[in-house]
Amino acid sequence: MEQISRALDTFQIEIPSWGFANTGTRFGKFQQAAAASTIEEKFADAAQVHALTGVTPTLALHVQWDLPQGVKDAGAIKALEAKYGIRAGSINPNLFQDQEYKFGSIANPDPAIRERATSHMIESAAIAAAVGSRDISLWIADGSNYPGTQSISRRIGWMEESLSALHAALVPGQRMLVEYKPFEPAFYHTDVADWGMALELARSAGPQARVLVDTGHHYQAQNIEQIVAWLLHLNALGGFHFNDRRFADDDLTLGSIDPYQLFRIFHEIHEQGAGGSADIAFMIDQSHNIKGKLEAMVQSVVTAQELYAKAALIDRPRLRELQDSSRTVEAEECFRDAFWQDVRPTLRDWRRTRGLPEDPLAALRESGYVERITAERRERNAKSISTYA
Amino acid sequence: MEQISRALDTFQIEIPSWGFANTGTRFGKFQQAAAASTIEEKFADAAQVHALTGVTPTLALHVQWDLPQGVKDAGAIKALEAKYGIRAGSINPNLFQDQEYKFGSIANPDPAIRERATSHMIESAAIAAAVGSRDISLWIADGSNYPGTQSISRRIGWMEESLSALHAALVPGQRMLVEYKPFEPAFYHTDVADWGMALELARSAGPQARVLVDTGHHYQAQNIEQIVAWLLHLNALGGFHFNDRRFADDDLTLGSIDPYQLFRIFHEIHEQGAGGSADIAFMIDQSHNIKGKLEAMVQSVVTAQELYAKAALIDRPRLRELQDSSRTVEAEECFRDAFWQDVRPTLRDWRRTRGLPEDPLAALRESGYVERITAERRERNAKSISTYA
Amino acid sequence: MEQISRALDTFQIEIPSWGFANTGTRFGKFQQAAAASTIEEKFADAAQVHALTGVTPTLALHVQWDLPQGVKDAGAIKALEAKYGIRAGSINPNLFQDQEYKFGSIANPDPAIRERATSHMIESAAIAAAVGSRDISLWIADGSNYPGTQSISRRIGWMEESLSALHAALVPGQRMLVEYKPFEPAFYHTDVADWGMALELARSAGPQARVLVDTGHHYQAQNIEQIVAWLLHLNALGGFHFNDRRFADDDLTLGSIDPYQLFRIFHEIHEQGAGGSADIAFMIDQSHNIKGKLEAMVQSVVTAQELYAKAALIDRPRLRELQDSSRTVEAEECFRDAFWQDVRPTLRDWRRTRGLPEDPLAALRESGYVERITAERRERNAKSISTYA
Amino acid sequence: MEQISRALDTFQIEIPSWGFANTGTRFGKFQQAAAASTIEEKFADAAQVHALTGVTPTLALHVQWDLPQGVKDAGAIKALEAKYGIRAGSINPNLFQDQEYKFGSIANPDPAIRERATSHMIESAAIAAAVGSRDISLWIADGSNYPGTQSISRRIGWMEESLSALHAALVPGQRMLVEYKPFEPAFYHTDVADWGMALELARSAGPQARVLVDTGHHYQAQNIEQIVAWLLHLNALGGFHFNDRRFADDDLTLGSIDPYQLFRIFHEIHEQGAGGSADIAFMIDQSHNIKGKLEAMVQSVVTAQELYAKAALIDRPRLRELQDSSRTVEAEECFRDAFWQDVRPTLRDWRRTRGLPEDPLAALRESGYVERITAERRERNAKSISTYA
Repeated sequence: MEQISRALDTFQIEIPSWGFANTGTRFGKFQQAAAASTIEEKFADAAQVHALTGVTPTLALHVQWDLPQGVKDAGAIKALEAKYGIRAGSINPNLFQDQEYKFGSIANPDPAIRERATSHMIESAAIAAAVGSRDISLWIADGSNYPGTQSISRRIGWMEESLSALHAALVPGQRMLVEYKPFEPAFYHTDVADWGMALELARSAGPQARVLVDTGHHYQAQNIEQIVAWLLHLNALGGFHFNDRRFADDDLTLGSIDPYQLFRIFHEIHEQGAGGSADIAFMIDQSHNIKGKLEAMVQSVVTAQELYAKAALIDRPRLRELQDSSRTVEAEECFRDAFWQDVRPTLRDWRRTRGLPEDPLAALRESGYVERITAERRERNAKSISTYA
Repeated sequence: MEQISRALDTFQIEIPSWGFANTGTRFGKFQQAAAASTIEEKFADAAQVHALTGVTPTLALHVQWDLPQGVKDAGAIKALEAKYGIRAGSINPNLFQDQEYKFGSIANPDPAIRERATSHMIESAAIAAAVGSRDISLWIADGSNYPGTQSISRRIGWMEESLSALHAALVPGQRMLVEYKPFEPAFYHTDVADWGMALELARSAGPQARVLVDTGHHYQAQNIEQIVAWLLHLNALGGFHFNDRRFADDDLTLGSIDPYQLFRIFHEIHEQGAGGSADIAFMIDQSHNIKGKLEAMVQSVVTAQELYAKAALIDRPRLRELQDSSRTVEAEECFRDAFWQDVRPTLRDWRRTRGLPEDPLAALRESGYVERITAERRERNAKSISTYA
Repeated sequence: MEQISRALDTFQIEIPSWGFANTGTRFGKFQQAAAASTIEEKFADAAQVHALTGVTPTLALHVQWDLPQGVKDAGAIKALEAKYGIRAGSINPNLFQDQEYKFGSIANPDPAIRERATSHMIESAAIAAAVGSRDISLWIADGSNYPGTQSISRRIGWMEESLSALHAALVPGQRMLVEYKPFEPAFYHTDVADWGMALELARSAGPQARVLVDTGHHYQAQNIEQIVAWLLHLNALGGFHFNDRRFADDDLTLGSIDPYQLFRIFHEIHEQGAGGSADIAFMIDQSHNIKGKLEAMVQSVVTAQELYAKAALIDRPRLRELQDSSRTVEAEECFRDAFWQDVRPTLRDWRRTRGLPEDPLAALRESGYVERITAERRERNAKSISTYA
Repeated sequence: MEQISRALDTFQIEIPSWGFANTGTRFGKFQQAAAASTIEEKFADAAQVHALTGVTPTLALHVQWDLPQGVKDAGAIKALEAKYGIRAGSINPNLFQDQEYKFGSIANPDPAIRERATSHMIESAAIAAAVGSRDISLWIADGSNYPGTQSISRRIGWMEESLSALHAALVPGQRMLVEYKPFEPAFYHTDVADWGMALELARSAGPQARVLVDTGHHYQAQNIEQIVAWLLHLNALGGFHFNDRRFADDDLTLGSIDPYQLFRIFHEIHEQGAGGSADIAFMIDQSHNIKGKLEAMVQSVVTAQELYAKAALIDRPRLRELQDSSRTVEAEECFRDAFWQDVRPTLRDWRRTRGLPEDPLAALRESGYVERITAERRERNAKSISTYA
């Protein structure tokens, strides 16, 4: 109980502004009347999640959607921070949506487009400085769909140049986080496809660059907790985008498909003494086409806490002893004894003593919040255009 | 040469109307100024592909996009057929785009929605009858994203009811083709996930139902040619949606990632004497976000011909003898000797003697067709709204 | 508690004789001094597992390893049954080990080899009849390593002939279970690669044939519980070979990699009312190269019970209601509420009231059984030269 | 033709001694009467392959199987080199077969076992020095089968220590090549699972360490040519173990499953000017359970030459121009034009002008070599009891 409390006291997780907006698959979006459209609505929804859970004080922002005028919008963000008691979190440039990025952004063979993409990243760093955010999260969606159509090797050099330029523009204390992803939207090659590539690019950029692990961005059966262990070992882990997957980058609620995996990831964090460290940014990156946005976000936060708490329960000195003597079955039983414990009653206690609702999902339902925003936003959302993408 | 000619003389492949329209990924569409928006533009583009290749006389139609008024639009289709010399091909209902289909169409727990989806399929059969198409292609995109949230088993029963109702509405000679897909847009379970499920549903529907194989809809490493062999063996193969993939359902140009695989699929067709049989509908189903629509379609048709011709070259009596005596290396060399032969000169000859351009891709470039439609459609397309889906 | 007790009272699981023998990977076996070599040792070990868990009354037998003289050995088996209080379970022919099976057994192009393989299966049925076993488990390991080297389509026909011959030899009440596997030992095509192929072969054989689901024999991300739901729907599920996997057919302890998956499989069993039904044979098929044989087997049985009990705890009427109204988050929470409950105290109670040790793994350690057999078998095992592989 | 000749003149590929010995899967070996058992037989077989192809002057050696007495056997190797005109190639320590390695070799929690493994690697370097080989190839098969049973993070540190010790023992000019593999024989975590981990270990060891790419050791759909491009970019590519795969590490004949992939890998080599460079060791690592050993080896060499020649045919200046302007279809057609050309006639010419048989596979059959060694080795092989596995 003590153990769980100590762990939970240092556990915070960032939620993304785009998690409250309508999203979907390439086959369409199922519109939600309660979806947020404006940056203020996103702050409001985030504040509601924080009120219910107490552990989501920051909101990740997406430059193109949330700060369309760039640094000029920083003042508006500061005002929203004050109004809703939620701080701006990581700043996310957009390197995939513009028509110019058809053949890539910072890996595009056209130097003018690379320059434009680099400028956008540098402006994102300026935004981060203006709103007081530490991290710039970089998802480089570049790649190609057909063998031979782009030069894999020259594109490496172009990315290095561009990321070094961004690093040069960072202010002290800022960090740039390089995310990797095996595929989608590109299907033959993705320029930053795995943690090795992200790490090399981070290193060539400079000491303020780190790797960002999105749990949904891995090959089938790849061992994510091992990658986490390596990045911690190399002091190169910047943070996580949490979500779950079964097939591709499904962006499902974290822990919904393979909860044991997230438990193991948290174990590596605890194991290397990185639990509670602000150096590892815990962030949620999900896309809820089916679940209600608020419901899914609260559910995600609660699930993350439960699995984090379970991982904190592992009897680590005993486990280490069993591992050192290769007592396989005993070590496994020691390890998963923590997974099988029902930590939910303890979490309810922890919440109650902190003045939080014991069951945040139930509290959300009782709050009437979703009904209220549905009423407020329904008409406006109904007018918005749904196209088949 | 004779062998190739005979094979090519019976080879035709259907192209899809949606292959000429703008499509993309969930992260956006790269707009093409030459993209078709109207059904007439799609017929015009299809006619151009047929003029250049000589083997694409039919155009697959999508009910929702191409016949928004259902059977009432059949007359317009007949007029376009006459004007462009292209016949309507398979008719494709849409069971995934409407907001009501959020939790499924014919597998939805809500009987009213199942009823609506069934009616749409039955109307699609009526459309097919009206325009003289044989095949109704059914892609049932139903599924769920999270364990336990839908009843896998009851949904089987609901699908059986609905598909039987459709079968009862077929006129003699019509066929319903049941497509399968492991995932996307649903990520935890897809109601028709593999060929076994599609086959069971086709059988329970009735004798005019067949299975449709989309080459992109398989698990990693799954042996598609073996599934084709089984479906032929069971007399249950209705046709193909051709495209290629590396990761998910990438909808890439056929033969672009693994050309040897398509060669092997064609081998099974030839092997079981189904080459040139009208019973196996060869159709293209691709989505070109990066390549030019016309270019990609012509390239696909040419590649399909080349691989079909290579497969026709296999010395089948010799191969059978080597297989019967399990002479592995010799059988393999016999098999891929056909793959390694450069059939392109022979194809050029075949085209010339049929009054077709020897190099359809070059002929497309020389025709100025793409420039012409770009000029005609650019302004209208620029106005169309591109939203992030 | 009641619910769990009722579920556990009908839960039994068969253990395999080969689970007590030395096995390994193609890179070698790590020899265990306590490994069983003789059929008597296997019966003795099985009896120990049953003494500790109370739910493993039968032992699957492998014809080649356990009854090398075929039916002649049936008397010896009956004597061991009596001596150890363990009954013979499913009978497993061997269709992969002999040198003649290099190019296949019942799918071999050589009719003499097919004949030999068929005879071996028929003899296995005779053995089953002689020892009073209901099920003959068929793992057809046939396939090929290189495209074009074997005729996929003709091999289908050969398998149908052979399996029909076996079916004709079954006595009333016997069942033949057809197992499927995507790959290994063959790497290009496996003749019975998925549940669809196994089902077709079972049907063409006759009404006493069923499909056997080995949980490790699936493609990455394939939804096994859905296949189970389909097979139950079609009344074609014969049973399971339980184990867990991450990459290939890893033959790991059940529930060790993805415990949530096995919970979902058990849910489908309960959901379709098949829980406790003797018609679904629950069997373990694992290969422990690292874990102690006895320890791993006891651990597997306990884990299976725990996950079966968790699945029994699902509030099914409530879940059905939530599914019917597509209340996604609530349904998911209802579903996994059962998964998160710690059923271990209840299992201990259940065991105590049945006169079983509360913690079978601890009881195994305390029993000194492993030390005893290690002492007895060490010398003999050290001398043995592995002929397996 | 010129282009192909120049490329072929610098192309050599190393063959492995274990490629001539009986191997199999965990389910057994299909014994070949012609299999080599002694190191002399392996040299003799390698000489035969070299006589037929002219491009396999070196033979990779496996310390445990080929030099059981370690450095003491170096003299015998030198004598065989002289007798057969084949030089010793890379030296391969064995870190997986001994019973002590059950829980790992250089990542074992037991320091005594790590020490033993390190000594074996250092002795392998001494062997390499004694026989004049440049490369020590390291396959570290360590890993674990169950979550929590070994400490992923501490094992990283142990490997670093051990590999640094090996590096310190290298003589100038020697290289240590670190191989990676996602799984097998371990199934939950493999300590050197991907190129990123291999690269980090190589770097921490020192400047004479490089990464070894085994083409069969990748996740499904992973882009191997991209990894090659990165390693070349980082000057960290030591060489290849060529083979092909469909599912796991199938060890099939190179180019047999996906020939287009190997073409693309060779393209990256040519593209970065590394073609013909002795710095990239081309090696074959295959396991032929079904194909005849000699036949398979000759077939592999011929296939490698054909795909290398095709890749050399790419019009690189033109391709670069098309890539730079993102003309996707044209670039793709330029790229695969080389793949579709039938280079076999040119290879026959090249061989004839070098005094080699035009068709090495046919020449092998005509030579009677396999019949001769079959006669010589049959009896001995029939008696041998496999201790492998």
